[in-house]
Amino acid sequence: MNAIEKSLPDSSLSSRVQALELTAEGVNLLDQTALPLSVSYILIRTAQEMADAIETMLVRGAPAIGIAGAYGVVLSARAYFATDLSLDEMTEKIRQDARMLAQTRPTAVNLFWALAEMEKVLQSPVSIPAELLDRLTEKARQIHQEDINACLSIGKHGAAVVPQGAGILTHCNAGALATGGYGTALGVVRSAFAQDATIQVFADETRPRLQGARLTTWELVEDGIPVTLVTDNMSGSLMQAKKVDVVVVGADRITANGDTANKIGTYNLALIAHAHGVPFYVAAPLSTIDITMETGDLIPIEERSSDEISTVNGELLCAKGVNFFNPAFDVTPAKYIAGIITEKGIARPPYQESLAKLFSDK
Amino acid sequence: MNAIEKSLPDSSLSSRVQALELTAEGVNLLDQTALPLSVSYILIRTAQEMADAIETMLVRGAPAIGIAGAYGVVLSARAYFATDLSLDEMTEKIRQDARMLAQTRPTAVNLFWALAEMEKVLQSPVSIPAELLDRLTEKARQIHQEDINACLSIGKHGAAVVPQGAGILTHCNAGALATGGYGTALGVVRSAFAQDATIQVFADETRPRLQGARLTTWELVEDGIPVTLVTDNMSGSLMQAKKVDVVVVGADRITANGDTANKIGTYNLALIAHAHGVPFYVAAPLSTIDITMETGDLIPIEERSSDEISTVNGELLCAKGVNFFNPAFDVTPAKYIAGIITEKGIARPPYQESLAKLFSDK
Repeated sequence: MNAIEKSLPDSSLSSRVQALELTAEGVNLLDQTALPLSVSYILIRTAQEMADAIETMLVRGAPAIGIAGAYGVVLSARAYFATDLSLDEMTEKIRQDARMLAQTRPTAVNLFWALAEMEKVLQSPVSIPAELLDRLTEKARQIHQEDINACLSIGKHGAAVVPQGAGILTHCNAGALATGGYGTALGVVRSAFAQDATIQVFADETRPRLQGARLTTWELVEDGIPVTLVTDNMSGSLMQAKKVDVVVVGADRITANGDTANKIGTYNLALIAHAHGVPFYVAAPLSTIDITMETGDLIPIEERSSDEISTVNGELLCAKGVNFFNPAFDVTPAKYIAGIITEKGIARPPYQESLAKLFSDK
Repeated sequence: MNAIEKSLPDSSLSSRVQALELTAEGVNLLDQTALPLSVSYILIRTAQEMADAIETMLVRGAPAIGIAGAYGVVLSARAYFATDLSLDEMTEKIRQDARMLAQTRPTAVNLFWALAEMEKVLQSPVSIPAELLDRLTEKARQIHQEDINACLSIGKHGAAVVPQGAGILTHCNAGALATGGYGTALGVVRSAFAQDATIQVFADETRPRLQGARLTTWELVEDGIPVTLVTDNMSGSLMQAKKVDVVVVGADRITANGDTANKIGTYNLALIAHAHGVPFYVAAPLSTIDITMETGDLIPIEERSSDEISTVNGELLCAKGVNFFNPAFDVTPAKYIAGIITEKGIARPPYQESLAKLFSDK
């Protein structure tokens, strides 16, 4: 990988922030491990590099890793297109790379959804390798563009649940950085702010990786939206002080009954909001809904390295000889969720019915 | 202040860890801002240095800052004893220093309680400056020793609520470092572990200052008690996984109705425990109970510098241009507290009656 510094792309989107871009050379990824101190892009040239980038969280956020996975398949197709493999051999090699991409992170369903979409192209009738490459490229670009469109719709639908002058609390980063652009939870924030600049945005810092502190504050400041940063354990204090009127978070996987896996601490926040009667919303595109999985307890929860807890910027924060527990996600039961804001509108309880309806209307 | 490195004192206490010690030269404070990377003592020679040490959290924890305040008065008395002031003049100068010590941190009541105890000595009939110095010294040492005794009793009473093989979750540091020795919440942990080495101890890291990560893990490892470190936002996930049977925390001020101010995040944890039916206990000596204050909403809550949130070890964690909210404490309403473990036994709801009884029996 080559790290190249460049200024942020000018964009016709409503956010100036873009996490990834397919170019003739490869995929430019905004290095999210370097934010907010350094804004640098890394050029990803191969499917293996993309798998590494997903695993090390250069790119993260459920919708964004779906798009990254699809682009990883395109990089695979480009590589094998440059060889003299037959169409069948090329297809099989690309499938191997897709399986490798699927091995990176287990919880967010968008990755598997996007790879399944790419597999459909691999299974479609094409006559020559060039056609396969074109179709895969077109499909990946379409997944990216549709995610942006979904976020814009999520923003529009979600803004309707944000009262005038409301305090909005969000967790982790479900923003432009976590999606094709604009964001899910932060899409709601952006759309609400566009209508009413008196809203107050609060961001949980989101230990252990601090995506709220490092990413959410950065992208909101970039877009000129005022934000107040708090530690994760201040949400109760904020709500006691009546500073929060609505909570909006993203999702990594939503099951058919509405149970939602999202960044660790989301469940805590849902319980705190519930205790205060503050409505708790999940904002996510349909590609995050795993309609084939019945309940949240079936979602595989990734456990990550203890270094994420024991160190910040490489400096040890605790005694040696300590044990760790570092689940990257938790599951919020549907009963704590006031609504699931999708590009097709807001699903309300009972989710078994409302989510199924979104898919049957699709 | 001179920083001197020395090995931990051998102690007849059940904890090897001691936060502060009165010597002929001054007060040796274990520098809690340097833990766990460096174990260093700082010699405090004057009341002003003690006030600075309390404010910058070289010494922290409600009972420990009470003791530190009392020792600060002794340092003041030593300084004025060395001059040729009259007894009355000396008394008034010491009072001025006591007022300065009271200005350091507003939330923990133990500081004000200890300074009030020292004021009683200042008001008692003595004939010469040497006698005043002796009595103040004796009183401060007594406050320290009684706090250790209180912690040992708290540990004994508290161990009774810890089931065989239980998972215990604690927040911040209510340990030997936060008290005269042994600890309140960690006193319960120590006593429970002495009876049953199969208990599992979980420590919240406790952002923003990470007292759980930096201090609690250190003092438990020092005493050979296994501990698992988690981020504050993992408590819900831990409880969903049935890993926590009881929560025990310390306190900075408990009002007559049982409402409890403690380190920020305690209230979140109480709500999470409540949602899971996990009993939530507060462990504190009577000196932490402000029986003259009716309810928790009257407790002054210290707000500290935003640097505590925006940086770790001096490195910036968030974008520039962000706002902050950094209350050092929150207030947990009495209704979420299963019991208040004191040196006189466990007070149970309704606290208005049970706490008043502890004081009338005193």
